[in-house]
Amino acid sequence: MSAGWIAVAGLGPGDEALVTPEVTAALAEATDVVGYIPYVARVHPRAGLVLHASDNRVELDRAALALDLAEQGRRVVIVSSGDPGVFAMASALFEALEARPEQQDTDIRVLPGITAMLAAAARAGAPLGHDFCAINLSDNLKPFAEVERRLRHAVRGGFAMAFYNPRSRARPHQFGRVLEILREDCEAERLILFARAVSTPEEEITCLPLAEATVEMADMRTVVIVGTAATRRVGRWVYTPRSVPA
Amino acid sequence: MSAGWIAVAGLGPGDEALVTPEVTAALAEATDVVGYIPYVARVHPRAGLVLHASDNRVELDRAALALDLAEQGRRVVIVSSGDPGVFAMASALFEALEARPEQQDTDIRVLPGITAMLAAAARAGAPLGHDFCAINLSDNLKPFAEVERRLRHAVRGGFAMAFYNPRSRARPHQFGRVLEILREDCEAERLILFARAVSTPEEEITCLPLAEATVEMADMRTVVIVGTAATRRVGRWVYTPRSVPA
Repeated sequence: MSAGWIAVAGLGPGDEALVTPEVTAALAEATDVVGYIPYVARVHPRAGLVLHASDNRVELDRAALALDLAEQGRRVVIVSSGDPGVFAMASALFEALEARPEQQDTDIRVLPGITAMLAAAARAGAPLGHDFCAINLSDNLKPFAEVERRLRHAVRGGFAMAFYNPRSRARPHQFGRVLEILREDCEAERLILFARAVSTPEEEITCLPLAEATVEMADMRTVVIVGTAATRRVGRWVYTPRSVPA
Repeated sequence: MSAGWIAVAGLGPGDEALVTPEVTAALAEATDVVGYIPYVARVHPRAGLVLHASDNRVELDRAALALDLAEQGRRVVIVSSGDPGVFAMASALFEALEARPEQQDTDIRVLPGITAMLAAAARAGAPLGHDFCAINLSDNLKPFAEVERRLRHAVRGGFAMAFYNPRSRARPHQFGRVLEILREDCEAERLILFARAVSTPEEEITCLPLAEATVEMADMRTVVIVGTAATRRVGRWVYTPRSVPA
């Protein structure tokens, strides 16, 4: 019987002070680390630890590799940025597991991490301080019409919103469409926050009225947060009040 | 000039292995800890550290106390369970700060933590593996009609959903109304997850079809997660696929 296992671990947004002790302990026990190149680069190399870095968009191959290694008795950490359950590797692993009924008793743990929207919100104040939603703007895995539909429900429901993967080189224009949709239903003063590379030396946080937002303010390393109609500034902070008046 | 500061810190869901090093460091430097009784009880007492524990529903008093202490040069950690920016103390602090223009340059940091829905999702698999929203079901600070409205938009938008504060002694029946609304628009097989006291010795995780859910399955320590139409089981896990077919 194999003693292999898989831990799908969230490394948080970048700062080592945001990595949980649980994740640090799993990495200390691992024989193998599997993940996207820049996330594997965040793991300290040591003798006996094999690093398997792969390119973007091969999530299922990565998950299959982890299952292969665990079957061989290896102790595998799949690393994700942020939280592994938020637009990251946990779903991909379970998708790969679904295709292997013979491995469904594999010892798997999902180790949560600080996801980008919550790190960004903390830096800015408390823009997600009331009901909110998280939407992946990429249409790699869903039609963009579905993104638009969700966006409209989020706005009309009065949710604060966090957008992951707002813009990439392959999709330079869709974020412009997102801004258009927001402007149809939100007032011009609605606050929007661009949080880039949060908790790293390249961190940049910009908060401005929706009317002044441009497509170029977002890139692959940005998480975008849109407040509710009640979101406001206090000093250098931005926050969403806890109460909704009757 | 005072060297006082305030850190609003997330202690995560309960397990010390889920407290970030950043939060641990802030607690080590603090002179005062302010918070709701059970959260302050999670802080290790030490000489020179004053613990100010208060009852539920006095968030603004607690924030005001922290601002008073910081003005006196104290180093104050306001402790929240989970993440301070998710239905917790960060918004209350900025609300209190708004009423004190003279203190708006107070040295404040918000230190993110592992919020309950992400800890619960990790224990169950990856039920929030695609677009999702977080709704506070309590009507302490908003009319219940607003909860209902948001719920309908969340369901119709195809979001996975996480519910905080689903039920309390003061509000024993509203969660029944929530289940009714869900049943109007969701299929009977829709998976719903009750995660109680995640990462503590009292942890209980139950996943079942919406048709079998009852009001009694939720209490004050429960976070409820409702999957999308695509959410499914694989082995002992439950996950939401990353893709939405065209």
